Amino acid sequence: MFSGTGKLSVGTGPVRTGVTAILPHGGNIYQDRPCAAAHIINAYGKSTGLPQIEELGHLETPVLLTGTLSVWNVSNSLVDFVAQENSELGSVNPVVGECNDGYLNDILGRHVRTEHVLNALNSASDSDTSEGNVGAGVGMTGFGWKGGIGTSSRVVAVEQGNYTIGVLVLTNTGSSEEFRIDGIPVGRELTPQSLQEADGSIMIIVATDAPMASRQLGRIARRAGFGLARAGGTVSHGSGDFVIAFTNGHRISSTGLRSCSLSGFLPEPQLSRFFQPLSPRPKKPLSTLF
Amino acid sequence: MFSGTGKLSVGTGPVRTGVTAILPHGGNIYQDRPCAAAHIINAYGKSTGLPQIEELGHLETPVLLTGTLSVWNVSNSLVDFVAQENSELGSVNPVVGECNDGYLNDILGRHVRTEHVLNALNSASDSDTSEGNVGAGVGMTGFGWKGGIGTSSRVVAVEQGNYTIGVLVLTNTGSSEEFRIDGIPVGRELTPQSLQEADGSIMIIVATDAPMASRQLGRIARRAGFGLARAGGTVSHGSGDFVIAFTNGHRISSTGLRSCSLSGFLPEPQLSRFFQPLSPRPKKPLSTLF
Amino acid sequence: MFSGTGKLSVGTGPVRTGVTAILPHGGNIYQDRPCAAAHIINAYGKSTGLPQIEELGHLETPVLLTGTLSVWNVSNSLVDFVAQENSELGSVNPVVGECNDGYLNDILGRHVRTEHVLNALNSASDSDTSEGNVGAGVGMTGFGWKGGIGTSSRVVAVEQGNYTIGVLVLTNTGSSEEFRIDGIPVGRELTPQSLQEADGSIMIIVATDAPMASRQLGRIARRAGFGLARAGGTVSHGSGDFVIAFTNGHRISSTGLRSCSLSGFLPEPQLSRFFQPLSPRPKKPLSTLF
Amino acid sequence: MFSGTGKLSVGTGPVRTGVTAILPHGGNIYQDRPCAAAHIINAYGKSTGLPQIEELGHLETPVLLTGTLSVWNVSNSLVDFVAQENSELGSVNPVVGECNDGYLNDILGRHVRTEHVLNALNSASDSDTSEGNVGAGVGMTGFGWKGGIGTSSRVVAVEQGNYTIGVLVLTNTGSSEEFRIDGIPVGRELTPQSLQEADGSIMIIVATDAPMASRQLGRIARRAGFGLARAGGTVSHGSGDFVIAFTNGHRISSTGLRSCSLSGFLPEPQLSRFFQPLSPRPKKPLSTLF
Repeated sequence: MFSGTGKLSVGTGPVRTGVTAILPHGGNIYQDRPCAAAHIINAYGKSTGLPQIEELGHLETPVLLTGTLSVWNVSNSLVDFVAQENSELGSVNPVVGECNDGYLNDILGRHVRTEHVLNALNSASDSDTSEGNVGAGVGMTGFGWKGGIGTSSRVVAVEQGNYTIGVLVLTNTGSSEEFRIDGIPVGRELTPQSLQEADGSIMIIVATDAPMASRQLGRIARRAGFGLARAGGTVSHGSGDFVIAFTNGHRISSTGLRSCSLSGFLPEPQLSRFFQPLSPRPKKPLSTLF
Repeated sequence: MFSGTGKLSVGTGPVRTGVTAILPHGGNIYQDRPCAAAHIINAYGKSTGLPQIEELGHLETPVLLTGTLSVWNVSNSLVDFVAQENSELGSVNPVVGECNDGYLNDILGRHVRTEHVLNALNSASDSDTSEGNVGAGVGMTGFGWKGGIGTSSRVVAVEQGNYTIGVLVLTNTGSSEEFRIDGIPVGRELTPQSLQEADGSIMIIVATDAPMASRQLGRIARRAGFGLARAGGTVSHGSGDFVIAFTNGHRISSTGLRSCSLSGFLPEPQLSRFFQPLSPRPKKPLSTLF
Repeated sequence: MFSGTGKLSVGTGPVRTGVTAILPHGGNIYQDRPCAAAHIINAYGKSTGLPQIEELGHLETPVLLTGTLSVWNVSNSLVDFVAQENSELGSVNPVVGECNDGYLNDILGRHVRTEHVLNALNSASDSDTSEGNVGAGVGMTGFGWKGGIGTSSRVVAVEQGNYTIGVLVLTNTGSSEEFRIDGIPVGRELTPQSLQEADGSIMIIVATDAPMASRQLGRIARRAGFGLARAGGTVSHGSGDFVIAFTNGHRISSTGLRSCSLSGFLPEPQLSRFFQPLSPRPKKPLSTLF
Repeated sequence: MFSGTGKLSVGTGPVRTGVTAILPHGGNIYQDRPCAAAHIINAYGKSTGLPQIEELGHLETPVLLTGTLSVWNVSNSLVDFVAQENSELGSVNPVVGECNDGYLNDILGRHVRTEHVLNALNSASDSDTSEGNVGAGVGMTGFGWKGGIGTSSRVVAVEQGNYTIGVLVLTNTGSSEEFRIDGIPVGRELTPQSLQEADGSIMIIVATDAPMASRQLGRIARRAGFGLARAGGTVSHGSGDFVIAFTNGHRISSTGLRSCSLSGFLPEPQLSRFFQPLSPRPKKPLSTLF
């Protein structure tokens, strides 16, 4: 969403915001629930749905990302989406993350509406995963420059097979002097320096198809901040930094009458392979995926 | 809110729901923030705002309670309320708790609107603290019978002075056979037994004026479930049971440029006095306040 | 251990202490590890080994209980026991809980030695599960009276089969006026009242054979305090109250090269059956097991 | 401690281990307790005393570091030290961290004894803070090379005054190919590559004199892993990575009858200054202190 220019007028604009939808798989998420975990690096943030993920160990909706003050409208719209697919819905735990786009956007105007949410959910596809200045990324900054949505992934080969692990970030964090690329402090050499302060936020969504229990996904999630550190982030006081990790390789049905049919989870030591590959020259370890 | 009778029709009714507002003090909560803590007994619930309470140790809005699927609309309406009082609002953490009123109410219709929220906030007073079948309590059940809102409080005398501790609950939990009054298992003697299952939820809000740090309030919050246990609750799988504790005796300003002016917090051992009075016949310990 | 009378002399006596061993199964626990979880009600305590249980979701040693200041010597002796059975041991996480027996015992003398630990471990059996004033229970009090070790169990019938859940407690908590039996406040009628203050501790060990993930065992563990509440406990400031839950129905090998061979975990809603039976007259729900 | 050469013989040697003592101040720590917090990055570790730090928000002993399997003997010896200074000691929470020195040392021999512990505690001084291959560092490796003890500190100027923040690490973590210096991946260029695997551990102790509440120290502690990330760490499955943060700027007495006499804690936004200085060229931010 992009409209208007000039000085901010609450309720009018300029509008620089949006919503990004992450559908773990192409089916009905409410009925076929990916195991999941959440981790909070710094809880100065308003994400919805995280406590229930921790208790039950799974998602029951797609994950949406948006601007901070739109998080509740977007959560409510996500209920509409789930209700369309599931009659007699009496309870659901929408999961929505946010970063503060108030530097570029009329944030208090809360311009993301149900139609935008449903459109993002219905138009999500495998083939077109746009990055950069799209969706929730439209209003974001990053390390003092224009921020947005980014993704990366790699394949991990373990005894049980080859699995993919990927990360999507909505970045709105950091100051330009802190900025690093894979650890190299390039930001302090960039001119002109941005005047924006470091406060912001980052949402990190980790997805895999490996057969992992929610406890194991929690271990993955707790390492996601290491990538942020190598990008220069220091998680300032006002930065709301949340991680959600899920797997399609271990799902739970909504009825609760059956459980996972997998032969078993990955042995614990093999998780290190997901934290960091053991090849001599790691190209894209989890911790540098963005 | 009460309208309609007969069979449920989504979006129409019957409507048996509402919203309850808890204002820690009569001033501007966003600017004069009570220290606070949250505790989750069972996180099968959708309450908003809890992670930031844990990170920063304070509230920055009143606490609202409502039915489960209205929690996001009510959170969004609470932003409207705070924005009315605080110009140029760019971020705020609304705190809204919920229980599932879907047994009596057209829950998916989400009938609580901004006007109801603002009315609850503007009409809250010291003098009229209605209990029972009011506000968010309208759609609730409790131990198989009609539930609702209840409160209790007592005075704790410690060396530093006399302080009050009170509890407000929104109860929607338990089965009739489990029901106890101060530990006495009266529910199993009641006839007829309710047919309703135990799944439900409870919101427990603890308020005090004692000078406590957020860590100390967390210790209070973690004991609130003991009162639920004595009322017969067993926190079934689907019961979302959340505790929020705050104090007016220790506040933080919104600017962050000054901190609390108190001479100091209560010594740790005196907290036991708030958990349970040491008088020979405790009439209303925290753990039996409801 | 019981020796000496009269006034306490540090390093000499009187000695009223001991150690209690809980062996999840008859095999080598270090190689065949029961899934487990821990929960801390009040962390004024010195139990060892709990963080690693939370991270990895299993036990790798038996669980020992003793007096507070013996917890480190007993942990070290438990390493000796595991090393006897497992050559080339380079790391192990001994799990030892404690309550403070300083009211009856020369606690600073730390009279529990490796020989006592090995004896407890080697003499543990299915047939003789002594209760009361035995093992670690020798130095304990409870609700102002003589405390000790107690156990209880029941069978839970779910779709997948019949499973047993049991609780062992080492109780050293509560004041006599608080004491309740299944919620009934009998303590305040007892004369003479004890002069002892409520500070103390309780260790609660929950064991089952149901196929549960560590996350599910965590849900069980977080409800164990409800039984304490019904026994009158209010968890005073100085009471260290810890819960460890494990299952023999889901084990992990030490090599990490294979995982559980179970067909699957219990569906989440069936956990409520373990929290509280649904029979009209629950005789021994989890929350009143002691 | 350094004795013996050649092949490992359990109970004999070679011995390459030791103990390091961190005394927050020169007084009686048990009576004059620094506020503190703990954070666990990966809980595959055996550190003692952390749960009570989290509950009560302070230290009551010095912090000791040693090899993994000596952690319980060292904890017990620390009780001896505290008992010497405090008569009638009935309870104390020794805090001891560890890394696994089993690659260089006869770890199961547990060669650190009470005399070594008392010597470390009694010989600690402001003037001689040796680094490198000393104390607990003797048996450690780091990123495939010889590891040990390291420290760094800097001064943070905020409105309330100038405060110092320092970090001491016991490092035994990482593989050589991962190794980075302030983010620069130099390790992959080093030859020969080490054959040692990445599993290990790290203990990070953060000390300051700023007036902070334990909740604020927790925020500091949760950022310490960012420095590890910039040094190349990825926290493999078997790495036990623990953080303890304390301040001398906010203390609690052992009697509990008085609390801190400070005028107040630092305002929350100023904590960012402790996470990362705002100067154009940060020389030693918290996250690169080691």
